[in-house]
Amino acid sequence: MASYEVFVTYKKGIFDPPGVTAERALSNLGYDEVASVKIGKYIRLVVEDREGGLDRVKEMCDKLLANPVIEDYRIVEVEEGTVAP
Amino acid sequence: MASYEVFVTYKKGIFDPPGVTAERALSNLGYDEVASVKIGKYIRLVVEDREGGLDRVKEMCDKLLANPVIEDYRIVEVEEGTVAP
Repeated sequence: MASYEVFVTYKKGIFDPPGVTAERALSNLGYDEVASVKIGKYIRLVVEDREGGLDRVKEMCDKLLANPVIEDYRIVEVEEGTVAP
Repeated sequence: MASYEVFVTYKKGIFDPPGVTAERALSNLGYDEVASVKIGKYIRLVVEDREGGLDRVKEMCDKLLANPVIEDYRIVEVEEGTVAP
């Protein structure tokens, strides 16, 4: 088995409604030191070992896990069991 | 300014509907090597430097960014400009 972490974020310039909402809410809660909040997706995949594993994970991101029009993604292969929390 | 990455995931045993949906969809798309998909939140915070910065970020997670009843979170302080993508 191979494990991957995928980080999906909005592309630069794309409006991030959850991030803006969190920014305002944190400010309202008194955390006025917060300058910026961006909220994306954190995906953990476990897949069977197969030839071209990383390329197939990229395909999965392009087709389903991210929206390449408005989102960037970064894939990191991780040792099994080291993905925390 | 200090930058933090926060990874929010469902606690063990808590049902993860987006993850299960992605698992099924990937299988339907022919990616039958996928054993497990978990989907959480990836938050990037930029805050002004202040005494006890990390503790305050923990507070923000407990109060707003995560739901401590069903979610775990992990905070990593990162060098400014190194947060990618």
